[in-house]
Amino acid sequence: MKTTKNDKILLAHGGGGRLMHELISDRIVARLNNDILAELNDSAKLDITSDSIYLTTDSYVVKPLFFNGGDIGKLAVCGTVNDLAVAGAKPIALSLALIVEAGFEFELLDKILDSISQAAKANNVNVVTGDFKTVEAGAADKIFINTSGIGIRLANANLGLSRITAGDKIILNGTIGDHGMTVICRREGITLDMQLKSDCAGLPSLTGELLENTDGVKFMRDPTRGGLAATVNEICKGTGLNVRIRERDIPVNPSTQAAADIFGFDLLTVANEGKVVAVVSAESADTCLNICRNHPLGKKASIIGEVIDADDGEAIVEIETRIGGTRIVQMPSGHQLPRIC
Amino acid sequence: MKTTKNDKILLAHGGGGRLMHELISDRIVARLNNDILAELNDSAKLDITSDSIYLTTDSYVVKPLFFNGGDIGKLAVCGTVNDLAVAGAKPIALSLALIVEAGFEFELLDKILDSISQAAKANNVNVVTGDFKTVEAGAADKIFINTSGIGIRLANANLGLSRITAGDKIILNGTIGDHGMTVICRREGITLDMQLKSDCAGLPSLTGELLENTDGVKFMRDPTRGGLAATVNEICKGTGLNVRIRERDIPVNPSTQAAADIFGFDLLTVANEGKVVAVVSAESADTCLNICRNHPLGKKASIIGEVIDADDGEAIVEIETRIGGTRIVQMPSGHQLPRIC
Repeated sequence: MKTTKNDKILLAHGGGGRLMHELISDRIVARLNNDILAELNDSAKLDITSDSIYLTTDSYVVKPLFFNGGDIGKLAVCGTVNDLAVAGAKPIALSLALIVEAGFEFELLDKILDSISQAAKANNVNVVTGDFKTVEAGAADKIFINTSGIGIRLANANLGLSRITAGDKIILNGTIGDHGMTVICRREGITLDMQLKSDCAGLPSLTGELLENTDGVKFMRDPTRGGLAATVNEICKGTGLNVRIRERDIPVNPSTQAAADIFGFDLLTVANEGKVVAVVSAESADTCLNICRNHPLGKKASIIGEVIDADDGEAIVEIETRIGGTRIVQMPSGHQLPRIC
Repeated sequence: MKTTKNDKILLAHGGGGRLMHELISDRIVARLNNDILAELNDSAKLDITSDSIYLTTDSYVVKPLFFNGGDIGKLAVCGTVNDLAVAGAKPIALSLALIVEAGFEFELLDKILDSISQAAKANNVNVVTGDFKTVEAGAADKIFINTSGIGIRLANANLGLSRITAGDKIILNGTIGDHGMTVICRREGITLDMQLKSDCAGLPSLTGELLENTDGVKFMRDPTRGGLAATVNEICKGTGLNVRIRERDIPVNPSTQAAADIFGFDLLTVANEGKVVAVVSAESADTCLNICRNHPLGKKASIIGEVIDADDGEAIVEIETRIGGTRIVQMPSGHQLPRIC
């Protein structure tokens, strides 16, 4: 393929002038087409009828940019709508801010923008405003993406750590660690017999079904950086109650486990990008589990444990291991897997 | 000063575990203290009573991080509230997403967070949610900041390019090019007899006064990247009307002009960070000018030109030069000043 200067981003594309306007119109607005974005105002006006608005933000610095099951663009949409979804909100609109290194190929930018467009459609959300910045070659690692999201509270949603009580069940919608291990193996050039695949997916459809069909959901969180271990520790710390989970009930893909074993990682601490941890009342647990299992993103859903009264002293997270023992699950310190999202 | 490993950001600070939680609690939440942020949910819940919500986003990659009149933190707050302000909205809440290179000094991070805190207070807005990512040393240039902002429409605001008609006056609230020339001179190590100072400031108070006290404001925009030249060209392109501005009526600081002359820059194309271009009805122009001149950010405000009917053919922007001639002001192509915001 012929490569010319025109195939690559120039510093001038971030300069606020003609080149930037052309890039935004021809590549970005054309792909993410919607009436609000097309106005190209510095702020997008949204006609929202809700008095409970949710705002969330995430930057994405994943390396490599492309991996089995997704890329930085899909991740930037799914990660942000998921933060709204687990708060009990319906995502309404996203902002999209790109920081791109001079010399980055337009071909890759276009692929990423196509992914963003597809993921936004799949999650019924529009990119309504954005920003485009360039930095010198070497001043950023290819491309960083920030998406912020606005959502409105779903009618049935009444979520909070304060609603959790002893006896509540903990539901997980599928296998853990797939995203983190896929990215790290791709980055380190490790190939296994069985292919790894990120679980990168948007959760709003699943969380919406849960909230619409039962009032037993008390709290949800997506176990991304820090993995399931961080999430259950946040529940424990935020409630002062013990959490007990069972290793045999936590779904794991064999290939993901094999990859974790190679690196010596505990899959409990590895990032997910299409998982939700839901704390639900004991009475609603079976209903919630069935809703999950009937949804494409919850076929392997499982009740992985429960919340129990704490003994004297600090509340802890315990796991029943496969061989019948018990160990404490610590909040991970955070040094294992850089740049997985 | 003794420098230890603990004085610098580690990759692990972005890992989603204990180190990240400590950094967010002890350094970020402590400085930007407000009840919503303190909940540390992935999404912030805002109780807003408006059916017209505005969303905006900007990433900040300014180099150097600190300059006379501001720093990347102040810029990240002011730039984003200004995008809401010129849309006719009152800023309500900001998100804050940091991408930090491993090895970045905590001392500098703290200074930037202090600036963010001060600028947020000065503009009556809270940082309600955020994200913290780390990348390897060399994978980003120190620190990049994204802020997104939510605002609600001010009662009197009815702004849009479609409201502009021939005869409307163009008001600018002060001198041009101060931000861009301050940053570029600081970066290139050029010092002048008279010190340069960025105009970095939040506009919501000024734009709010304009909208509350007159109904003659038809359109506003902040001339950031691309400068005044880009903004007047956007007005021209968006309306199909000619714009005529007068060089002698455009306020310029002598030191900023001297710096532009050294680099051979046209100040019309240089970025501002505390300026607003307002298109107002001819009848309201004097009222608007007085409101500006009585505001701390508008002491040097001036009516710099007007909108006039286009001749046959494409609409153009013309400037009457100081020596009595006329030239066309083009949309800048964008290659002059990288990383000024």
